[in-house]
Amino acid sequence: MAVGTAATVKALDPDDLRRLGAQMILANAYHLHLRPGDDVVRDLGGLHRFMAWDGPILTDSGGFQVFSLETLRTVDEDGVDFRSHIDGSRHRFTPESVMRIERNLGADVIMQFDHVIPGQSDETAARDASERSVRWLGRCSAELARLCAEDGDGQPQALFPVVQGGIHDALRREAVSAVRATGDWPGYGIGGLSVGEAKPDMYRILEVVDDALPDDRPRYLMGVGFPDDLIEGVRRGVDLFDCVAPTRMGRNGAVFTQAGRLNIKRAEHRLDPRPLDEGCDCAACTRFSRAYIRHLFLADEILGLRLLSLHNVHFLVALMGQARRAVVAGDFDAWSREWLARYHTGLPITSA
Amino acid sequence: MAVGTAATVKALDPDDLRRLGAQMILANAYHLHLRPGDDVVRDLGGLHRFMAWDGPILTDSGGFQVFSLETLRTVDEDGVDFRSHIDGSRHRFTPESVMRIERNLGADVIMQFDHVIPGQSDETAARDASERSVRWLGRCSAELARLCAEDGDGQPQALFPVVQGGIHDALRREAVSAVRATGDWPGYGIGGLSVGEAKPDMYRILEVVDDALPDDRPRYLMGVGFPDDLIEGVRRGVDLFDCVAPTRMGRNGAVFTQAGRLNIKRAEHRLDPRPLDEGCDCAACTRFSRAYIRHLFLADEILGLRLLSLHNVHFLVALMGQARRAVVAGDFDAWSREWLARYHTGLPITSA
Repeated sequence: MAVGTAATVKALDPDDLRRLGAQMILANAYHLHLRPGDDVVRDLGGLHRFMAWDGPILTDSGGFQVFSLETLRTVDEDGVDFRSHIDGSRHRFTPESVMRIERNLGADVIMQFDHVIPGQSDETAARDASERSVRWLGRCSAELARLCAEDGDGQPQALFPVVQGGIHDALRREAVSAVRATGDWPGYGIGGLSVGEAKPDMYRILEVVDDALPDDRPRYLMGVGFPDDLIEGVRRGVDLFDCVAPTRMGRNGAVFTQAGRLNIKRAEHRLDPRPLDEGCDCAACTRFSRAYIRHLFLADEILGLRLLSLHNVHFLVALMGQARRAVVAGDFDAWSREWLARYHTGLPITSA
Repeated sequence: MAVGTAATVKALDPDDLRRLGAQMILANAYHLHLRPGDDVVRDLGGLHRFMAWDGPILTDSGGFQVFSLETLRTVDEDGVDFRSHIDGSRHRFTPESVMRIERNLGADVIMQFDHVIPGQSDETAARDASERSVRWLGRCSAELARLCAEDGDGQPQALFPVVQGGIHDALRREAVSAVRATGDWPGYGIGGLSVGEAKPDMYRILEVVDDALPDDRPRYLMGVGFPDDLIEGVRRGVDLFDCVAPTRMGRNGAVFTQAGRLNIKRAEHRLDPRPLDEGCDCAACTRFSRAYIRHLFLADEILGLRLLSLHNVHFLVALMGQARRAVVAGDFDAWSREWLARYHTGLPITSA
């Protein structure tokens, strides 16, 4: 999913996203509640009409943002009090209020409000947050049912639970069991990863969770990731990802290529007539040289940000397309080994 | 002409410009000489390839920029010494060096290097600058001929003189005579207007110059303008315009509409489902509400700048299309009166 926090995928236009093959956009309940207000989005016909995107949209619950506010929030069993990072105004999120926000926004997939904790939390803290998240899931589900009944369910929305449990295998298994005991959900979020833990921990937890989840339901690894994370996630059963990296990196001049990352600002690109990534068929690479895009960057021209974001999002979308084809063809292991070797060394490897 | 000072029309992509019907782009010799360097642009195949625009391009000579540097430049008969506004480095422009720069950039139409003076200059200063500009025209022409002979004239470029003379009618007539005495040029720039003089002065000078120029050559009114300036220019025979207003205004939240200007940041647009300009068929107006674009602006989202620039450039291009059709149909007077009345009052007028 391309990340459109504030109902826009940064410098990209919905038409750009359609052309490069993006299927789904993520938008953020916390940000849109604060600005412009989820009631404003509802009054303008919901997110799809507001941002002119007729494909699927997922909203996260704002849990990650609210719990990241640290000094600006207090948590109790009922919900979270916090202050806006924009103007310091007071707000309160509960499972029920977040469902009302996500109903107003009107995305196709909505995430439950969960209790998010730092990546290195001990087992006691992780258990407490995980068990609270399961209790909050029940409240989210009840409130969503009430809202749907109220408006005749004119717009069905798929509620995804979030599996928590830190990097503790047993806790993750318990979390999956507890979540599954509450119902048969259309998909499952995997939260609390890629938040500072070691990569082997993340990969192991993904395997644990994948084993415990029903085979026929999509898994969404929240907030991940970079190309190698995507590939390692797919290897472990993940279907959905989101990450701000492609647009945020783009704004800093960093570019994904099949031969690893490059920084467009470097002097070596001053006269470089090559595209950002040789062989790439995105709208930046098929028209512009590294030298041109470097010039735009150094001159603070907005088109530079736009072209790099376009390329980076295209790169990840195209990578997932390749991964999908490799899974279907049954040669994901060989394909991914070769892809990663080239990405890490800059050199293509040939199979022995 | 859409203005692409640094070889990009700000937030717009060449594909956007093509779609909205822009025919020609202006780029700037001063800016491109300093960054990335006209030699860099030449080595990458010239401006058309560099910025992926296969339509016509015009480069101005940098005269306007260099003479605007005031404390950073000194003028003599041979040329101008100046310091870069970017890093303070020393440079010298002469008619010959500017021709080499414009040859490197490779635009289709290139402007002569002229001596630009403030709009309210007295007749002595205006005469001095105007006569120097004519002498510099001869040097530009000789240098361009030399450069074309040197490279076999693989890429012909049309050199436009610039008619100066301030707001002094007799001086403008003398300037046109002197320029015409040097040759039969493919088109003529009209410089030194829209630089602080009163509107009636500008309109009168346009009439004086229009009368004195050959009927079958395009006139280019440099650095103009806003919608009413364009219409008053067309009324007085002008064919080409350029102005940074549509993109600069767009970056400040200001929007051209058929019923006058509006500012998208105003609270009244918070829930406004209407397009920026009702009846407009640009890629912003056909998809997005004022409320959405206002949200993007207040959240500092780049897409907001892009959509407003897109609309404003489209607005001027479409306006020129209407003017052209009215000229051809022979009802320019009636059309322009009605258009201006609506633009200034916000109300359509009906003919008596």
